[in-house]
Amino acid sequence: MTSSPAPDVVRSAYAQLAVTDLDASRRFWADLLGFHVQYEDAGVLCLRGTDELTHHSLVLRQGGMAALDHLSYRVRTPEDVDRAERFFAGLGCPVRRVPRGQGTPGVGDAVRVVDPLGFPVEFFHDIDHAERLIQRFDLHRGAQIARLDHFNICTPDIPNAYAHYESLGFGCSETIEGDEHELYAAWMYRKQTVHDVAFTGGAGPRLHHVGVATHESHQVLRIADVLGALNEQHHIERGPGRHGVSNAFYLYLRDPDGHRVEIYTSDYYTGDPDHETYRWSVHDDRRRDFWGNAVIESWYKEASPVLDLDGNPQPVSDALLDESAVRVGADGLG
Amino acid sequence: MTSSPAPDVVRSAYAQLAVTDLDASRRFWADLLGFHVQYEDAGVLCLRGTDELTHHSLVLRQGGMAALDHLSYRVRTPEDVDRAERFFAGLGCPVRRVPRGQGTPGVGDAVRVVDPLGFPVEFFHDIDHAERLIQRFDLHRGAQIARLDHFNICTPDIPNAYAHYESLGFGCSETIEGDEHELYAAWMYRKQTVHDVAFTGGAGPRLHHVGVATHESHQVLRIADVLGALNEQHHIERGPGRHGVSNAFYLYLRDPDGHRVEIYTSDYYTGDPDHETYRWSVHDDRRRDFWGNAVIESWYKEASPVLDLDGNPQPVSDALLDESAVRVGADGLG
Amino acid sequence: MTSSPAPDVVRSAYAQLAVTDLDASRRFWADLLGFHVQYEDAGVLCLRGTDELTHHSLVLRQGGMAALDHLSYRVRTPEDVDRAERFFAGLGCPVRRVPRGQGTPGVGDAVRVVDPLGFPVEFFHDIDHAERLIQRFDLHRGAQIARLDHFNICTPDIPNAYAHYESLGFGCSETIEGDEHELYAAWMYRKQTVHDVAFTGGAGPRLHHVGVATHESHQVLRIADVLGALNEQHHIERGPGRHGVSNAFYLYLRDPDGHRVEIYTSDYYTGDPDHETYRWSVHDDRRRDFWGNAVIESWYKEASPVLDLDGNPQPVSDALLDESAVRVGADGLG
Amino acid sequence: MTSSPAPDVVRSAYAQLAVTDLDASRRFWADLLGFHVQYEDAGVLCLRGTDELTHHSLVLRQGGMAALDHLSYRVRTPEDVDRAERFFAGLGCPVRRVPRGQGTPGVGDAVRVVDPLGFPVEFFHDIDHAERLIQRFDLHRGAQIARLDHFNICTPDIPNAYAHYESLGFGCSETIEGDEHELYAAWMYRKQTVHDVAFTGGAGPRLHHVGVATHESHQVLRIADVLGALNEQHHIERGPGRHGVSNAFYLYLRDPDGHRVEIYTSDYYTGDPDHETYRWSVHDDRRRDFWGNAVIESWYKEASPVLDLDGNPQPVSDALLDESAVRVGADGLG
Repeated sequence: MTSSPAPDVVRSAYAQLAVTDLDASRRFWADLLGFHVQYEDAGVLCLRGTDELTHHSLVLRQGGMAALDHLSYRVRTPEDVDRAERFFAGLGCPVRRVPRGQGTPGVGDAVRVVDPLGFPVEFFHDIDHAERLIQRFDLHRGAQIARLDHFNICTPDIPNAYAHYESLGFGCSETIEGDEHELYAAWMYRKQTVHDVAFTGGAGPRLHHVGVATHESHQVLRIADVLGALNEQHHIERGPGRHGVSNAFYLYLRDPDGHRVEIYTSDYYTGDPDHETYRWSVHDDRRRDFWGNAVIESWYKEASPVLDLDGNPQPVSDALLDESAVRVGADGLG
Repeated sequence: MTSSPAPDVVRSAYAQLAVTDLDASRRFWADLLGFHVQYEDAGVLCLRGTDELTHHSLVLRQGGMAALDHLSYRVRTPEDVDRAERFFAGLGCPVRRVPRGQGTPGVGDAVRVVDPLGFPVEFFHDIDHAERLIQRFDLHRGAQIARLDHFNICTPDIPNAYAHYESLGFGCSETIEGDEHELYAAWMYRKQTVHDVAFTGGAGPRLHHVGVATHESHQVLRIADVLGALNEQHHIERGPGRHGVSNAFYLYLRDPDGHRVEIYTSDYYTGDPDHETYRWSVHDDRRRDFWGNAVIESWYKEASPVLDLDGNPQPVSDALLDESAVRVGADGLG
Repeated sequence: MTSSPAPDVVRSAYAQLAVTDLDASRRFWADLLGFHVQYEDAGVLCLRGTDELTHHSLVLRQGGMAALDHLSYRVRTPEDVDRAERFFAGLGCPVRRVPRGQGTPGVGDAVRVVDPLGFPVEFFHDIDHAERLIQRFDLHRGAQIARLDHFNICTPDIPNAYAHYESLGFGCSETIEGDEHELYAAWMYRKQTVHDVAFTGGAGPRLHHVGVATHESHQVLRIADVLGALNEQHHIERGPGRHGVSNAFYLYLRDPDGHRVEIYTSDYYTGDPDHETYRWSVHDDRRRDFWGNAVIESWYKEASPVLDLDGNPQPVSDALLDESAVRVGADGLG
Repeated sequence: MTSSPAPDVVRSAYAQLAVTDLDASRRFWADLLGFHVQYEDAGVLCLRGTDELTHHSLVLRQGGMAALDHLSYRVRTPEDVDRAERFFAGLGCPVRRVPRGQGTPGVGDAVRVVDPLGFPVEFFHDIDHAERLIQRFDLHRGAQIARLDHFNICTPDIPNAYAHYESLGFGCSETIEGDEHELYAAWMYRKQTVHDVAFTGGAGPRLHHVGVATHESHQVLRIADVLGALNEQHHIERGPGRHGVSNAFYLYLRDPDGHRVEIYTSDYYTGDPDHETYRWSVHDDRRRDFWGNAVIESWYKEASPVLDLDGNPQPVSDALLDESAVRVGADGLG
């Protein structure tokens, strides 16, 4: 274990995805979903939601395979970038400094690591500001995505993931637990929402999904309607529905490469210092869908591979516990 | 065939359901869904939506078995009741006059028939008016049901059902058809909405569902949330979703006896004299769910039995064509 | 009076407005409000809502002054066009036949009259059908206007207007009345909504507004947001609010020429043969705004002039009764 | 000035209002608005929103006059209560410790002060937790209030108020400024929303309003409809509308004593360390209403008196700058 202090993480900041056809991805994320294109060149696309005041919350880069390039968290001060470097070095993780201009456009000095869970993760403080579009309603379109909400990652050992993020100062809003309190899933946060990151038990490291927020539920319904109108309903994997966990109204889509995005609205405030973890039983069939609708099997089984710091795919390990094997209500997939 | 002229049907007016536990039904339909109780006694409950200005649009009566007691259409004039009697008598159908006071509370002189499709159907003109609740928002609750929208019936021979309702003067807004234009389903109307009655291919005569309308989609979502809150999500069978056919946003619930109700919003105007039928291919997986979500098997297979004029169950015949056997997209149930 | 039978009117079909800058009008009605452009040439623009299956519901033509060119009603059969001609000729009104190709694009043989209230009104049966956009959600934008709902006209003698439209077979859904039942305003319908036409007491003949329908209230809010975003909030005259009369949620906008449009959602079914008129007291301050918000003075005072059959402005007479002078609650403008 | 460090404020926690008829207030806040009654006795009522996990966010106590009893902020640790005591004592303010059981029900050890702006303000850390109602949709009613959002206070010297809250560690999300950057109003936050407290220029110290949040805009519309239904639309003072500042959709109500509450939805995240202040010109008529609708005069002029620590009314001083006197667009009230 490390004795080096953890960086002060502000929030989940952006995900960088490798995609195999940048034009097709641009159409999906910008034209259909309504992300604002902040920057683009031949190989990369920086996108943000209408409420976001920093350069991007989603980066798509042309790559040889569809994968997660890296997750990125913003930290409170420039010194926290150094703290992150020492923290992960102390854990024996691969660590690499990425000076402004050598990494993702708009982002200042950063450190990238392969974390103990096997995920490529970046920490940065400095990022370009961007024009305020909050009230440019004339430019809002598609699902009218307001902002990135969270990352959801597949990892085989949930207690291990929990302990790692706890050591990074994350609180835990909700869990799914078995009869002996064995942990099937957890939702953890730094900003004052239900989560910045959540863990879905399963073979990993893999990226389960990126969660993005809209203001109201009708905006979630609209993107489903638009996809049906275009006869592209194959992008819809699951939902719309209400999550038991987080209470959010959700819709899961798959992008042209199969990367999963959750359109998500209406969670709750978690900023009080004594905010308590809410624990769901794995036997409560409302945990994944509050209305008891069955979870789609692909939602439990499929996820995006992740890359190491050199852009090579990380090996995947099987899950220790399999939530999808718990036969309960409409949810059992056994 | 008959040469007697058809009655001038105004609209689908109410469904009368036999239920096995009136208290349980009252809780579901009035307390949860938000129907207004216009009349009740030990054996019967007359309910209406907030926009309805006549005595009821749904009647629940205590019975020995769960079944459809009868469907009821309002006709334009008192003379149309007589016309209905002659029309169905001319077809060789069982026909019975029901004077005011001997039938359903609030309804004036009526005629009840077993129609050529085997369904118990009533025609009436006279019905008590009721206090205007359209703007009594303080009394609106649950799903805030505004009004009855339509009946959906299972019948084995769709072309036959189509011909019967066409002879009653109904227009056809939409159909589902096979490659040779064989008819899998049809939506037919008198009032200026997509339908007053629709036919789902399947063993029949059986009642597939009663469709009730809300004004906005958030009201549909709310009733699902309330059911989850009470851990009664088992009432939710299918949805929420967008129908391809009718374009309505839907949620299907099952009441304590298994009677199905569709909470439904947002169809379109059909009142022009040359309104054209819109034809869906049975191979288009958006026809039943515009977002491509799979239809739940019970939704295709289960339905309520119907009674004859003496309250005995009608025998059921198998379907000629089985839409659920058409393997297409997410919809195939084969 | 005439003894010639009235035509069978189906519904309010379209309004044709003379505008002084067709490009500016196109931007407002099509780009901002979201009307679909069905046809355009150098001098005319034919627009329709997303649910409309006929050629247009709003026509803008370049003119020397901003005015109502004509209102237009669809009738049930071609013979009803002839009936309209005889009906208005019998009333001593100016009447002119307009064969297909000589009038408004897409419209077949029509008759145009100056009605006894001084308004230019057209009756037609035949109109081109148009591609179904109901489910082309990808093309819906702006306020996502679904269809024309109604016309609202200023006329000095409301009882006279009422009697005229009653003679045309219109029902009356709601009125505003004084203590002696003197009529301040009335809402009259042929299709099964609250109205196809309404009368606002005031100097006339003038066009008060064209009412267009959206499906849900959030679509009404959105167009206000878009106008604010563009710093064009001067187009917003009144609202959003809930009308007492009709129960609709409303927003009133003024187009670049000052023509008024109401974005309107959520009225109720009026199709039953014994549908009763609901009577508001002129002293109930909820009649115009159910939330008691004051009516904007320009809303009571300003309206568009109307043209005769030769395109010359009709003279205007003062009102007999002035609703805006009734001092009541927030509504009094005295 | 003080050199004592400021307490670490977490968020605006609750407002305690003195009301003259507790039954009438209970009906307004609980029955109509939908606040959950967490505790009540003969003299006090503790209310909370559906998302709130602590004992209350609004306290109504029977009093001899309608007034603000105190505003209350939660601090991060028990030691921050001591810090608050020293901080305000160092400023020369009246300061009083209130041990658990002697102050407001459910609240632990607290300190109450009269702050330099003349407002009675409490700081506490310890508060009872309360049953989670986030997903008890069956209990949500009225406006379905989710949580307290902010306080808005009238104070004559805005730069002074700004400096005071800045010294307490608050960030500033938005301002209204004159041509010489003179400050007309400011919105300041600790939690990651637009504000915990805002200052409206005017005679003070007075409480302008308490702001409470709903999840979606239709919930804001609904409470207006309910008030109209009950013919109690006099409770509606202003709105609904979209604020330029904060971007929130709003509705202002007055309770039976004239205390003002804002029903508020949809602001934005402010948690980044370099979040920039957004500055509105006092000449932009969208600052108060993004749609350009006029501000109601009473909204600028009327507010609740505030009490000192002994329950006596605080004297009121006139404003230095008067925003309502700035004649601009629809907003000018001159």
